[in-house]
Amino acid sequence: MASTAGQIIRCKAAVAWEAGKPLVIEEVEVAPPQAMEVRLKILFTSLCHTDVYFWEAKGQTPVFPRIFGHEAGGIVESVGEGVTDLKPGDHVLPVFTGECKECPHCKSEESNMCDLLRINTDRGVMLNDGKSRFSIKGQPIYHFVGTSTFSEYTVVHIGCVAKINPAAPLDKVCVLSCGISTGLGATLNVAKPKKGSSVAIFGLGAVGLAAAEGARIAGASRIIGVDLNANRFNEAKKFGVTEFVNPKDHDKPVQEVCKRINHVLEERVIAEMTDGGVDRSVECTGSISAMISAFECVHDGWGVAVLVGVPSKDDAFKTHPMNLLNERTLKGTFFGNYKPRSDLPSVVEKYMNKELEIEKFITHEVPFSEINKAFDYMLSGASIRCIIRMDA
Amino acid sequence: MASTAGQIIRCKAAVAWEAGKPLVIEEVEVAPPQAMEVRLKILFTSLCHTDVYFWEAKGQTPVFPRIFGHEAGGIVESVGEGVTDLKPGDHVLPVFTGECKECPHCKSEESNMCDLLRINTDRGVMLNDGKSRFSIKGQPIYHFVGTSTFSEYTVVHIGCVAKINPAAPLDKVCVLSCGISTGLGATLNVAKPKKGSSVAIFGLGAVGLAAAEGARIAGASRIIGVDLNANRFNEAKKFGVTEFVNPKDHDKPVQEVCKRINHVLEERVIAEMTDGGVDRSVECTGSISAMISAFECVHDGWGVAVLVGVPSKDDAFKTHPMNLLNERTLKGTFFGNYKPRSDLPSVVEKYMNKELEIEKFITHEVPFSEINKAFDYMLSGASIRCIIRMDA
Ligand SMILES: NC(=O)c1ccc[n+]([C@@H]2O[C@H](COP(=O)([O-])OP(=O)(O)OC[C@H]3O[C@@H](n4cnc5c(N)ncnc54)[C@H](O)[C@@H]3O)[C@@H](O)[C@H]2O)c1
Ligand SMILES: NC(=O)c1ccc[n+]([C@@H]2O[C@H](COP(=O)([O-])OP(=O)(O)OC[C@H]3O[C@@H](n4cnc5c(N)ncnc54)[C@H](O)[C@@H]3O)[C@@H](O)[C@H]2O)c1
Ligand SMILES: [Zn+2]
Ligand SMILES: [Zn+2]
Ligand SMILES: [Zn+2]
Ligand SMILES: [Zn+2]
Repeated sequence: MASTAGQIIRCKAAVAWEAGKPLVIEEVEVAPPQAMEVRLKILFTSLCHTDVYFWEAKGQTPVFPRIFGHEAGGIVESVGEGVTDLKPGDHVLPVFTGECKECPHCKSEESNMCDLLRINTDRGVMLNDGKSRFSIKGQPIYHFVGTSTFSEYTVVHIGCVAKINPAAPLDKVCVLSCGISTGLGATLNVAKPKKGSSVAIFGLGAVGLAAAEGARIAGASRIIGVDLNANRFNEAKKFGVTEFVNPKDHDKPVQEVCKRINHVLEERVIAEMTDGGVDRSVECTGSISAMISAFECVHDGWGVAVLVGVPSKDDAFKTHPMNLLNERTLKGTFFGNYKPRSDLPSVVEKYMNKELEIEKFITHEVPFSEINKAFDYMLSGASIRCIIRMDA
Repeated sequence: MASTAGQIIRCKAAVAWEAGKPLVIEEVEVAPPQAMEVRLKILFTSLCHTDVYFWEAKGQTPVFPRIFGHEAGGIVESVGEGVTDLKPGDHVLPVFTGECKECPHCKSEESNMCDLLRINTDRGVMLNDGKSRFSIKGQPIYHFVGTSTFSEYTVVHIGCVAKINPAAPLDKVCVLSCGISTGLGATLNVAKPKKGSSVAIFGLGAVGLAAAEGARIAGASRIIGVDLNANRFNEAKKFGVTEFVNPKDHDKPVQEVCKRINHVLEERVIAEMTDGGVDRSVECTGSISAMISAFECVHDGWGVAVLVGVPSKDDAFKTHPMNLLNERTLKGTFFGNYKPRSDLPSVVEKYMNKELEIEKFITHEVPFSEINKAFDYMLSGASIRCIIRMDA
């Protein structure tokens, strides 16, 4: 065990004191891991929209002060009581959702929605004792989705830690903790396009581009990207997207912004491009109209639509049931149906054997001291992923 | 070839002269089969709701005079030009939807919705020449869904004919032409429950009971039947249904007939019975509120809901997208995803090797001369299936 094992560690963390205000690098105290917990030294972390969303805390219960961050790569520093699967020195990816290996979901081959460790964005404390492991002069600083990787050290439940190949470069594979795996798995694990098939991707953010990467890996012959923002198209070409549809271009007859008309046109455009519809579609926008379009644009008889985007509370998915009876399938996925501990190591291997290209997702890099720049890049739409180096 | 080959056959048929009026047994002339057609001698036929629905012709384009009937067993009498797969004497089931074996749907492993021969309820003529093969004194009598089995002889496109084991008793397996295969396939081919799993069946008519029979064959340990009509529960026990829910029993707090409340309660009842939801559900009602309940009552993580019932034109399937994102799957099926020619022979074999029990579906039998009684039995809800013997 490292000499710090069992001790409180003093280190730097980027603390969000208030909603929407720049993070402040502070010296925090990180308590040792308790039973079924590990303490990690974070080496690289990246920023995802979900961090920004809960940092902005619009329309949610604000939990502050808090340490955000949930995409990261690190090394186990010490382990708590009863931990046998992990040991100091292991290379790991912390994950915002977990795998207890004992609940009905973990035991089911089909689900990754662990009853015990399923994502919980409201909880700011550890499961074990309902307390935070972070503090500044005795004041607790809350956790975020059990990971809080914007800190040099963090404490995580072992169910939320994927042990990976130590040869994998952590400054690259750290982005597999969330968005990239989500999009990739949505295509590879859920939509499952066949070689030579057509796939429509709605939304070309990081998640959608990862879904496109999945379609490329699966050997899809046509990958149709749909986005309201034409700026996304150029970047998307690197991800194998072969054709583009901007719903805005097809709204000519109607000046008024009418989602329904928009949506019907979009669907017709895709149906015409593909002789009746695409074989698979993956929705990565969070927009309900895109979800409905993504479903209705798949081919009858065999089309499968997969929803990934997180909708608003009041949204309703609405379609004529004949669209279903004509043998279309509609599915949703969470974290690309990957089980964090069982499956993430194999995603890392896909990168190691050059099947999966991670570099093209990484557009920016900043030292930890400039973490707020990563927020700026994301908010301006400039970045796909910005790596934050903890040692710099 | 039989001596009648190439000749017009004069025989008895039950003609629907007008919507909703009793059928009249008439002497009709049945022209010889043309290219890619066969003429069948029908031995047994049965009545399905779809016959009744188009006979009542409420809110549809009426096509009369017409010969209904689409569940039947018969023998090939003669074949038209270019027919090589079938020969006189073959035992067959005519089917209301076809399989051309050449279109993208027929070539896809996943679809049975043949582009050429997909069910068409408006067309009353043969594809080949746009004409009817039935006439009475020169007046054409229209076909129904390409089968028109309420006739001693009928002409059918070869794509709508399944050649089956000649040892199979036609007075039993004739019911596999439509409703029974639809429900059975919805469970076995689409919902695919695992051994020991829980399955909810919405609607306990012939189709729902066949879906329950599928769940029994698949080894489901709990089969929950849901119907508004409590009379259905007793019969359903024979089909392996182990528990019953009547949505009406759970509407206590609301006197007003409120579908939404009804539906939410029903879903909660099933979720409580099954610790979070059933593994699979199959909807066989045609009611949109049942479709929504059937979807929302499946377990998150792995639940699959399959829609079978034919909805009304103005229905909208509506659900919160989080129900999908929590890893539920929603599918629709047509004819249980069976390809008529490729797959029906194997359903007959399931009966022959005693896996599938057909007898319990057959509650009544009438001679052809009393075919209108079959309509009475169905309309009063007394029958599941009534066999009509053509030779009596
Ligand atoms: N299910 C999960 O496990 C999971 C995990 C991470 C992210 N997500 C969700 O995935 C979605 C995408 O995430 P991201 O980080 O890529 O977001 P992003 O904002 O970078 O990208 C979304 C893209 O969708 C486009 N878009 C929005 N509305 C559209 C419409 N109606 N039609 C076409 N395009 C439209 C936007 O222009 C944008 O380019 C979000 O909803 C996010 O919450 C889900
Ligand atoms: N998809 C196909 O290929 C195919 C083929 C044949 C039949 N069908 C359809 O399957 C459905 C069932 O056919 P059937 O012949 O068994 O019909 P049926 O009328 O005999 O049975 C339907 C049952 O559903 C019950 N029901 C109605 N509304 C309900 C609700 N809201 N909740 C619970 N139960 C409810 C009724 O009481 C009845 O017992 C019909 O819609 C029919 O059109 C589809
Ligand atoms: Zn679990
Ligand atoms: Zn994320
Ligand atoms: Zn076909
Ligand atoms: Zn039928």
